[in-house]
Amino acid sequence: MACRSGCCCNSIGSFNEDNARFLMLALLIIIYLLCGAAVFSALEQPKEKLAKERWAQRIEQFTNKYNLSQDDLKNFLRNYEEANVAGIRVDATRARWDFAGAFYFVGTVVSTIGFGMTTPVTIAGKIFLIFYGLIGCAATILFFNLFLERVITVIAFVLKFCHERRESRKAGPTQNCRRPSTDNRDRRTDSLAGWKPSVYCVMLILGVAAILVSCCASAMYSAAEGWDYLDALYFCFVAFSTIGFGDMVSNQREIYEAQVAYRVGNFLFILTGVCCIYSLFNVISIVIKQVLNWLLRRLETPCHC
Amino acid sequence: MACRSGCCCNSIGSFNEDNARFLMLALLIIIYLLCGAAVFSALEQPKEKLAKERWAQRIEQFTNKYNLSQDDLKNFLRNYEEANVAGIRVDATRARWDFAGAFYFVGTVVSTIGFGMTTPVTIAGKIFLIFYGLIGCAATILFFNLFLERVITVIAFVLKFCHERRESRKAGPTQNCRRPSTDNRDRRTDSLAGWKPSVYCVMLILGVAAILVSCCASAMYSAAEGWDYLDALYFCFVAFSTIGFGDMVSNQREIYEAQVAYRVGNFLFILTGVCCIYSLFNVISIVIKQVLNWLLRRLETPCHC
Ligand SMILES: [K+]
Ligand SMILES: [K+]
Repeated sequence: MACRSGCCCNSIGSFNEDNARFLMLALLIIIYLLCGAAVFSALEQPKEKLAKERWAQRIEQFTNKYNLSQDDLKNFLRNYEEANVAGIRVDATRARWDFAGAFYFVGTVVSTIGFGMTTPVTIAGKIFLIFYGLIGCAATILFFNLFLERVITVIAFVLKFCHERRESRKAGPTQNCRRPSTDNRDRRTDSLAGWKPSVYCVMLILGVAAILVSCCASAMYSAAEGWDYLDALYFCFVAFSTIGFGDMVSNQREIYEAQVAYRVGNFLFILTGVCCIYSLFNVISIVIKQVLNWLLRRLETPCHC
Repeated sequence: MACRSGCCCNSIGSFNEDNARFLMLALLIIIYLLCGAAVFSALEQPKEKLAKERWAQRIEQFTNKYNLSQDDLKNFLRNYEEANVAGIRVDATRARWDFAGAFYFVGTVVSTIGFGMTTPVTIAGKIFLIFYGLIGCAATILFFNLFLERVITVIAFVLKFCHERRESRKAGPTQNCRRPSTDNRDRRTDSLAGWKPSVYCVMLILGVAAILVSCCASAMYSAAEGWDYLDALYFCFVAFSTIGFGDMVSNQREIYEAQVAYRVGNFLFILTGVCCIYSLFNVISIVIKQVLNWLLRRLETPCHC
């Protein structure tokens, strides 16, 4: 509800509602970031100090044992860092730029996961990436949006089907999930008109789906990679949310048992996971928008003029 | 145009249009991925072999010089890899988990850039990340969507303003950018109704803005970090598109000239850049949808029944 001019006595009177919502969200995100930074700093700082001390000891011990020059060792480690960027690790990893490796790489580009286990190092590769990513990422966003649209349609279909079955059995139908909401794009599934599920219903279903996919995927990853189940869950969230830190990356060793099955499983789990979590983020963002609208209405103090 | 039943003689007759579009997009993306994998593989594979050979030579030279045990050196490098995950590098980097570092980290989480220069290593940090990211990423998606909405409103305002000025000067107005399109969400800027810019107009403006921001940001990064201008441009695209490989990360050294100004500039450039490129992706995805619709209409062969 935008403030009607001449009858507004609060601070957001001079803005219209859209601007107020935008600024309020920006403010809330900054507060959220500050709180998050404080919590993570408190949780992780002790371990950082510990890791630094341990590494200092280790480097001291190693140089003493072999009577190395510190500068020489540092140069060697710098070379290793460069080799790391080119995808080289101590323990044999899969080839980075064979066709399968390059396919994994372009998958992390268009999904914007960007693990970074493989990155282009040639100038031509870097320039090509910019143009390739521009179209690829846009196409993937469209794919995710159409996926969400399909999910909503399927839910509407199931709701309608359940309702009709229930009605054919007894007289009084109880609709607990159905409510027109979410958004109103052009749909041509005319028979399903009016059966749009509520945003909370979609959120619930997507949330359950995301948890199921993550749990199954984690079971696969912990078995194949030897990760803790909790670590595997963390990996799943980081990958499916397209954050993709790259501190843990699936399917990087040279040899696995059931190699082909694992590769296919990895691809399918990441695809489904990203679809679910991306859609979930979008649905949660609609709920956050509703909360913002509610907050704005609360902030609009009653007019005394 | 969905196929009317009984009068359809092509392969997509049994699907409705939405499903056909979804499947066609999936197919096109897979083809796009395969082509991309082939190109990147061709571009990067020679360099990978070279890097592997160079690293093998380097490790041989180093072990010979100091008469090291290969196994011992490999263990040492494994320890270095672990230290890397904890954010340690040979050359002094900024503290990872002081407040400023943690703020940079949460920024890469909620934006889903996920450079990975800093990652949680404690169990508590990993669990907290999942819940923190869930709300944070959703809020940021809403922020980007509202940003795009604001941009469209501003363009509509400018179009209307220009038109009114022109009309007050002469009689016949020429509207080259105005056409109702993009999407039809609820807007309450009633005075701007009918002034929605066309999707191509928005794409053009966002594209120019993205190029401008990237060029300016690259100038700053190449000056502050000592990167090639082209490398800096590549970094800008990778960061702004939220791919965030992490092979190059800005603002990681311990000391910079004009430290505070650079940190603020880094934050502002990444914020504006991500807003522009995210919006650009969304607008391009609308254009891709239009292309898909056109393709679908072309595939619908005329009925001969
Ligand atoms: K990412
Ligand atoms: K990333």
